[in-house]
Amino acid sequence: MSETSRARARALDAADPLAGLRERFALRDGPVYLDGNSLGRPPAATLERLAELGERWASELVSGWEGWLDLPLRAGDALARHVLGARPGEVVVCDSVSVNLFKLALAAVDRAPGALVSWAGDFPTDRYVVAAVAARAGRRHVVLGEPTADALEAVAGDLALVCLSHVDYRSGAIADLAGLSAAARERGALALWDLSHSAGLLEVDLERSGADLAVGCTYKYLGAGPGSPAFLYVREALHDALANPIPGWFGHAEQFAMGPAYAPRPGAARFLTGTPPVAGLVAVLAGAELVAEAGLDRIAAKSSALTGLLVELADERLAFHGVRVGSPRDPRRRGGHVALLHPRARELCAALVGSGAVLCDFREPDVVRFAPTPLDTRFVDVDEAVERTRALLAAGLDG
Amino acid sequence: MSETSRARARALDAADPLAGLRERFALRDGPVYLDGNSLGRPPAATLERLAELGERWASELVSGWEGWLDLPLRAGDALARHVLGARPGEVVVCDSVSVNLFKLALAAVDRAPGALVSWAGDFPTDRYVVAAVAARAGRRHVVLGEPTADALEAVAGDLALVCLSHVDYRSGAIADLAGLSAAARERGALALWDLSHSAGLLEVDLERSGADLAVGCTYKYLGAGPGSPAFLYVREALHDALANPIPGWFGHAEQFAMGPAYAPRPGAARFLTGTPPVAGLVAVLAGAELVAEAGLDRIAAKSSALTGLLVELADERLAFHGVRVGSPRDPRRRGGHVALLHPRARELCAALVGSGAVLCDFREPDVVRFAPTPLDTRFVDVDEAVERTRALLAAGLDG
Repeated sequence: MSETSRARARALDAADPLAGLRERFALRDGPVYLDGNSLGRPPAATLERLAELGERWASELVSGWEGWLDLPLRAGDALARHVLGARPGEVVVCDSVSVNLFKLALAAVDRAPGALVSWAGDFPTDRYVVAAVAARAGRRHVVLGEPTADALEAVAGDLALVCLSHVDYRSGAIADLAGLSAAARERGALALWDLSHSAGLLEVDLERSGADLAVGCTYKYLGAGPGSPAFLYVREALHDALANPIPGWFGHAEQFAMGPAYAPRPGAARFLTGTPPVAGLVAVLAGAELVAEAGLDRIAAKSSALTGLLVELADERLAFHGVRVGSPRDPRRRGGHVALLHPRARELCAALVGSGAVLCDFREPDVVRFAPTPLDTRFVDVDEAVERTRALLAAGLDG
Repeated sequence: MSETSRARARALDAADPLAGLRERFALRDGPVYLDGNSLGRPPAATLERLAELGERWASELVSGWEGWLDLPLRAGDALARHVLGARPGEVVVCDSVSVNLFKLALAAVDRAPGALVSWAGDFPTDRYVVAAVAARAGRRHVVLGEPTADALEAVAGDLALVCLSHVDYRSGAIADLAGLSAAARERGALALWDLSHSAGLLEVDLERSGADLAVGCTYKYLGAGPGSPAFLYVREALHDALANPIPGWFGHAEQFAMGPAYAPRPGAARFLTGTPPVAGLVAVLAGAELVAEAGLDRIAAKSSALTGLLVELADERLAFHGVRVGSPRDPRRRGGHVALLHPRARELCAALVGSGAVLCDFREPDVVRFAPTPLDTRFVDVDEAVERTRALLAAGLDG
């Protein structure tokens, strides 16, 4: 912190149209929280709705299901409208990111021959699942060195699926969703995107982007809680062309007829499987409504401003102590977190967390991630976090 | 109700060693609740722990994961010990019943050639999933008319997997877990059991039963709430022989190394996939502890006495109105619910629920299910429910 930077941060907070929404979270004393891209802070309304759900469970008992049965679709439609830029019926909320990725990837290889493509920087669970699907189907699994159209173009042979992370979980770099989806389509492949680090943060316009399929989590920028259910998106034109490889009763057109044969529900709902986690779905709906109230355009703009300030202050005050910024400097290419690179990143992160200065996280081999989530982080928090980091580094990390 | 039957029910309640546990549930005014085999009533401790979890999420934020990461194993071990008669490391809690069934069924066909066997009375989602696994693997799917060793013996050819429901979701009949597991083993097949209607109710002794694999839900007799996560069991001897077809990061031996290759965790934990639903897991642990406190032997004995009284009173007072008991009369063969058969069962159920008399459910084509869950149902509740049913039938259902 300097007098100047603090005054500037205060001025940015004063001018922030989203500043008032911070009070809508269940705020507690503690370190500067910059790990909302791992687990978002709870909106107060979410905790209230979960308490109401407990009361409803106790009083309505099994009758409560009349209001819960369609939650996977209602939560999906809310995400479609307010978060993902998709159409009604194209998004459902269910299972985990990994399970949804498996379902969509296997459905894609059932549809067409050819290799499966990942990127070396995809979130690890995504690569493991795509590799397993490729092995099961006897397909090649090609891992790109860069998530670019050129790299994709250079892959030989038929392609069935291109599976990529929208935002790099380490660097925060944004991949070209529209460009890579078009490149995949040119190769005859479906484009499957993991939007975990962009849903609720960036203006993901799935309909216009040309993406075919997507998955993502709801416990980061959507604040739905630890292990809340994931979403999946299937472009409307593909609904009848793809079959759910795990056809459970919630994906059945006549769920309670319980007959011998399976008939899929219309829409992306055919990719539902088992009994949906009601508490998680209630929390997803609450998160989607908060995003709707804030407006994705304003959220994305504030994220860009917050991470921009963070990059600038890191350059100014942390570079001297060996910190380099590992995220794109172009705000249009930068997601919601900034990677601070340091040779002793693991120790730096442990010191920041252990001292109660900043709650952040470490990623192999040399990354400390700072994520100033726009709905609950102030510009002064960014200034304060950088100052605390500088002080720890100046003390040699050991002191 | 008659004076005699009510007095007898009161005497049974007075002598019930589990009677005091009813007060441990979040009781609300309402109809007689006999649908706890669809959605169990919430234990008060569970609602308290969920509120504590919300506070922990708000105050510890991402650091909460230090206490949450191993919940799938801790909840699994609690079920193994107190509910399933399995060993530590053989049970984990994750995903839904349908997804777990898919994982285990596909792992079984990856292991050995041969057909997959279901029973026509299995819960529908189970049959759909097994049929899909068979179709994917190019195997025969044989559907037995009866869940008996003789029926299994009559199936020609190699068998890879026999997948059966332990308790019939319609009639409540208990299948011969040990006998059918042995019969499956003789045929070289793995036995995979759906314990949804027995976990927390019957003395399921998986270790001694010879079952190889099992799945089940936690929202019935374990009271973990709508859509709470399922469990899966893998016999220790099979841990290294089976691979998880959906290998996500929580099943990885070094989850946070995030390296390029996949290495499975030891134990049944290799069948974990995505980020676990923390709220559901907290509720499963609370449910397992309540079962441990009550004792499965006492729970099973009370269930048998409750359903025995129900059968007796139905014979006495409902047979005149066209109700037949569709559940086994031998208490050793009867699970936690009684099927009341009636030609107008759908209307009868609607009248019972609609009038606020009894909350129960209907199953095609002619079954009303009454489930007097032992921890929160009194013998007088059974007497009262039968009397209310008699009165509705005597009034001609139309009121």
